[in-house]
Amino acid sequence: MPWLPIPADSDFSIHNLPYGVFSTAQRTQPRVGVAIGDQIIDMAVAAQLGTFDTCLTKAQRSVFSQPYLNDFIRLGRTIWQQVRRVLQTELSDPASRLKANAQHALVAQADATMHMPVQIGDYTDFYSSIDHASNVGKMFRDPANALLPNWRHLPVGYHGRASSVVVSGTSIRRPQGQRLPKGVDQPVFGPSQRLDFELETAFIVGKDTALGTSVTPGDFDEHAFGMVLFNDWSARDIQQWEYVPLGPFLGKSFASSVSPWVVTIEALAPFRVAGYVQEPEPLPYLHDPNPLPNFDINLTVELTDPADVTTVISRSNQRFLYWSQAQQLAHHTINGCNLRVGDLMASGTISGPDRSSWGSLLELSWGGAEPLTLADGSKRTFLEDGDTVTFRGWAGEGDHRVGFGEVTGTVL
Amino acid sequence: MPWLPIPADSDFSIHNLPYGVFSTAQRTQPRVGVAIGDQIIDMAVAAQLGTFDTCLTKAQRSVFSQPYLNDFIRLGRTIWQQVRRVLQTELSDPASRLKANAQHALVAQADATMHMPVQIGDYTDFYSSIDHASNVGKMFRDPANALLPNWRHLPVGYHGRASSVVVSGTSIRRPQGQRLPKGVDQPVFGPSQRLDFELETAFIVGKDTALGTSVTPGDFDEHAFGMVLFNDWSARDIQQWEYVPLGPFLGKSFASSVSPWVVTIEALAPFRVAGYVQEPEPLPYLHDPNPLPNFDINLTVELTDPADVTTVISRSNQRFLYWSQAQQLAHHTINGCNLRVGDLMASGTISGPDRSSWGSLLELSWGGAEPLTLADGSKRTFLEDGDTVTFRGWAGEGDHRVGFGEVTGTVL
Repeated sequence: MPWLPIPADSDFSIHNLPYGVFSTAQRTQPRVGVAIGDQIIDMAVAAQLGTFDTCLTKAQRSVFSQPYLNDFIRLGRTIWQQVRRVLQTELSDPASRLKANAQHALVAQADATMHMPVQIGDYTDFYSSIDHASNVGKMFRDPANALLPNWRHLPVGYHGRASSVVVSGTSIRRPQGQRLPKGVDQPVFGPSQRLDFELETAFIVGKDTALGTSVTPGDFDEHAFGMVLFNDWSARDIQQWEYVPLGPFLGKSFASSVSPWVVTIEALAPFRVAGYVQEPEPLPYLHDPNPLPNFDINLTVELTDPADVTTVISRSNQRFLYWSQAQQLAHHTINGCNLRVGDLMASGTISGPDRSSWGSLLELSWGGAEPLTLADGSKRTFLEDGDTVTFRGWAGEGDHRVGFGEVTGTVL
Repeated sequence: MPWLPIPADSDFSIHNLPYGVFSTAQRTQPRVGVAIGDQIIDMAVAAQLGTFDTCLTKAQRSVFSQPYLNDFIRLGRTIWQQVRRVLQTELSDPASRLKANAQHALVAQADATMHMPVQIGDYTDFYSSIDHASNVGKMFRDPANALLPNWRHLPVGYHGRASSVVVSGTSIRRPQGQRLPKGVDQPVFGPSQRLDFELETAFIVGKDTALGTSVTPGDFDEHAFGMVLFNDWSARDIQQWEYVPLGPFLGKSFASSVSPWVVTIEALAPFRVAGYVQEPEPLPYLHDPNPLPNFDINLTVELTDPADVTTVISRSNQRFLYWSQAQQLAHHTINGCNLRVGDLMASGTISGPDRSSWGSLLELSWGGAEPLTLADGSKRTFLEDGDTVTFRGWAGEGDHRVGFGEVTGTVL
């Protein structure tokens, strides 16, 4: 039991301890923090207090004063585990150094500004939800053969734009671009008419690997530091006109949003679950020795309209991924592609089998043909100016809950 | 006339002055250099001598001691121009400080190790050669409708992998992966059987832009610092199986090679030429006010086989680009995507109208159906282990030649 009061059903129980980067009005320098209840442990201050002297050298302790998590992550899995244990001990021990210095070491989340948690090297987006891929295939291709021939053989993915990944709370400007309206053969130019969200999670690479080497699925826990919620905002009309033959480009690169808190893989480990049965059996390099390759993470999408009425429009779960993140990692590196600490690997839209669990407006409104009705009676096919989209994600419950908080953004 | 002897037809005349990052056995710290003839001006030493005191503050002069060009580039176009003028003056004046201290300030290129010139934020690959896109369309789609409907309306592009961009001279490991052999419906796993090069150039972004803003084609010279030769190594069999519907991924991300010398846009300006007539006329945001949007840069591809015999297998030219680099830049940012100094924007394979000018083995061997004969009589459809591919590029001639040197890599 922590000595700190933890609000009921807090995402940030003592079993979570996610990492983020924050600043305050009093101290504007972005630095590393760990969320607990409605507070943030200022890790730079905690380090100055000597909290981590047993596991970190003086040079290593400076990682908590950095404006990104990358240097901390680079210390490796053993250190991640040691720091976690120290924090859990300090938060449980009523005689701890942290408690004695809580006034300096703890900051109310309400008083903090959150920043991008990591400096992203490369960002990759997968397409690993079979229900999502099937929905898209039914809509745009052949309902009888919704999945393309390669889909069950490999986790399809593509490179995304790292520069435009922004932290939760950043407003999203509706992108302009070319689109081809139905029935004409010349594109027109203007703001996207089919702006959408994509409900995703993403893992953050925890270890550099050398060009020419590969990572096996069994090594996932060593190579993945943690996970974030991820909104891969998409302009469907721009994307549809531009994407042949080289894939999505401007329909995606105007913005993607991440949650400020990175939940560690270790905190999520108790929530491992089986995924879908993979048929046909993947090639050996994709064999995941872990019988529980997925995570039971509840995911919701809320749409708050300009009248400030909020509707939960989707309830999904990360367990619906067909390709596990360990398989994504193995596939990404099987050609020798090198990874860098901070690389972001997004899941692709996570839809479940039922309509209530679909992860994009494209699916929820079936390509715009079947508008959604919001709580105040207004209708939506795609996003309108002033709409706010908020994802939440959590595993477990009560004082064992391990949550992500939220990732939110408002369309300008 | 420079006081330094410049070898005849050197790529590195006084009209070029390209930037790179180098180190030597005596001083292993990578730092900024400028190529002149067969020498390198050690810009860190030149700065210490006071060479740039007239145009750079003390803090600014430290950019030349950095291991990447990014900090120098970030100083902006006016500084690029001033430093260029100072160097041309110093190299022409027989009483210059640089000449008096040549023993310290100049390093023989033969004694230097070249490094990655820039830290790349994001790397984008376009597909802007009409002859290349037509060849690929004829081979894989419809000879009568080789270009897809969007191709003449926008410069098609996709995001590439930045982590695996390597400097010239780095060996290339043949990637493993899935491919679908002809006539079967299950993929097999193993080394790529269709390893190829792609003859490209790339420009390097010279100015940060904010998310939500766009750059017009007319602003190209302010936003582009310089250009490199670029080999976008491609595993055609891996790419063909994986690329639907989200584009190239592992078929590209195992490696791409850049030349170590970045030739500035200013040095290339005298070689501007008209491009193809664009029909239909592009949308207004793609209108390039410059009547000479392309560059007359000769490009050659040499293949050196394991018997050490070299054959020039292609002679192309950057003037064959249909979409100009200024248009690429405008298109990339029209949706509000932000740019960072050091971003790499590659042209896509540059093929000309004649077979002798095609920029990939895929085209030169027409999908493997028509093997090439090398100078020693051996045949090639795709690259074999031990093959070395070298691109060269240059504009102008004699003591006005502005060249890139080479980008080279050997297949392991």
